[in-house]
Amino acid sequence: MKVEQKLKEMSLELPPVADPAGLYVYTRRVGNLVYVSGQTPDINSVLQVKGVVGETLTLEEGKAAAKLSALNVLSVLKRELGDLDRVKQFVHLTGFVRCTQDFEEHPQVINGASELFRDLYGAAGVGTRIALGANALPEGAPIELTAIVEVTD
Amino acid sequence: MKVEQKLKEMSLELPPVADPAGLYVYTRRVGNLVYVSGQTPDINSVLQVKGVVGETLTLEEGKAAAKLSALNVLSVLKRELGDLDRVKQFVHLTGFVRCTQDFEEHPQVINGASELFRDLYGAAGVGTRIALGANALPEGAPIELTAIVEVTD
Amino acid sequence: MKVEQKLKEMSLELPPVADPAGLYVYTRRVGNLVYVSGQTPDINSVLQVKGVVGETLTLEEGKAAAKLSALNVLSVLKRELGDLDRVKQFVHLTGFVRCTQDFEEHPQVINGASELFRDLYGAAGVGTRIALGANALPEGAPIELTAIVEVTD
Repeated sequence: MKVEQKLKEMSLELPPVADPAGLYVYTRRVGNLVYVSGQTPDINSVLQVKGVVGETLTLEEGKAAAKLSALNVLSVLKRELGDLDRVKQFVHLTGFVRCTQDFEEHPQVINGASELFRDLYGAAGVGTRIALGANALPEGAPIELTAIVEVTD
Repeated sequence: MKVEQKLKEMSLELPPVADPAGLYVYTRRVGNLVYVSGQTPDINSVLQVKGVVGETLTLEEGKAAAKLSALNVLSVLKRELGDLDRVKQFVHLTGFVRCTQDFEEHPQVINGASELFRDLYGAAGVGTRIALGANALPEGAPIELTAIVEVTD
Repeated sequence: MKVEQKLKEMSLELPPVADPAGLYVYTRRVGNLVYVSGQTPDINSVLQVKGVVGETLTLEEGKAAAKLSALNVLSVLKRELGDLDRVKQFVHLTGFVRCTQDFEEHPQVINGASELFRDLYGAAGVGTRIALGANALPEGAPIELTAIVEVTD
């Protein structure tokens, strides 16, 4: 598996990662697990899309924002691991969607992230997940993701 | 301990589990931990109750929905482990309650899940927990739970 | 490192911890990880501040509430470990801010917790993090934190 080769073939680029603005680190390894901090649809730490899914953003726009957030998950994992092929499997993905009170399609929105991980890692990219709503997210982002992945030694 | 015998004595049945609709798996094991994906009050992947606790649903109805969600946690754990007696202890339970902005009794609602785990596993069923509100949940579910459990080899 | 000595020098006191009101434990250890249950700005299990950040509470008041919640994280860790110097590193911090729908500064609020952990533990106190909004929290608390820390044997 050559994950970065696949990204190229899909014409996708990993966003560059600026240093964290606040008091956290992007990734922390403990044993063979790597925890990933909340990722929003940024490029170079600048939010690319803002809004409320079901109100100012459509489901498809939310899904695209989830995909960009997922690319940031990969960017910070690459920074941690050097090589994205060292991800053994996705253990858990948390996907918050900033949305209206009657929005019901959080899984379809977060699939924007999960489809990317599946396309790159196959079954190993499809782990456990929770997808749900949030009334507000940092800077007005429509999506915030965290992940826990298992890595090879 | 014979957890399934206890369930029978309590006249409770584990809901059958359909394949996941979306891009996730119900459980993922890493070392001796099993992560469980977000569970809602479904039977056979069909949501049994919909609404907002504090508005269209009472605290007691929310608590019953938490209990049914907890039965689904057990259903997917049984699928993973073969035998529910292989759960050694509950490590962490996350309980989201879809509720009004002024609702304050999330712990009492999520006790609907915790009481079931305690009745079946005793002190080992009582782990760490966060109970809180969400403005919206998938399909309009009133409850979504995730769990991390430690299992025997 | 003498964390409790530092707390004294900072004129901070660990709130006493009453037994959990509900069906959960404050901490659960598994391997070298300790999971910490949802902590709110309590002293002796009595909520000290209630409200909505961006509405009835300012950012600074929210940040102070995050700091008090963080002191409770330390209180329950001390009860688990005996000695706060046994915390090796913070792995993950989850920070929910009860807020208005247009609030955007969750990271600045949760920094109230992260600054405390950094002041006490240095770089080891700065782990991965997610900061975000919630429409409602138990008892009307403005903040709820969970943590996962790695401990020495």
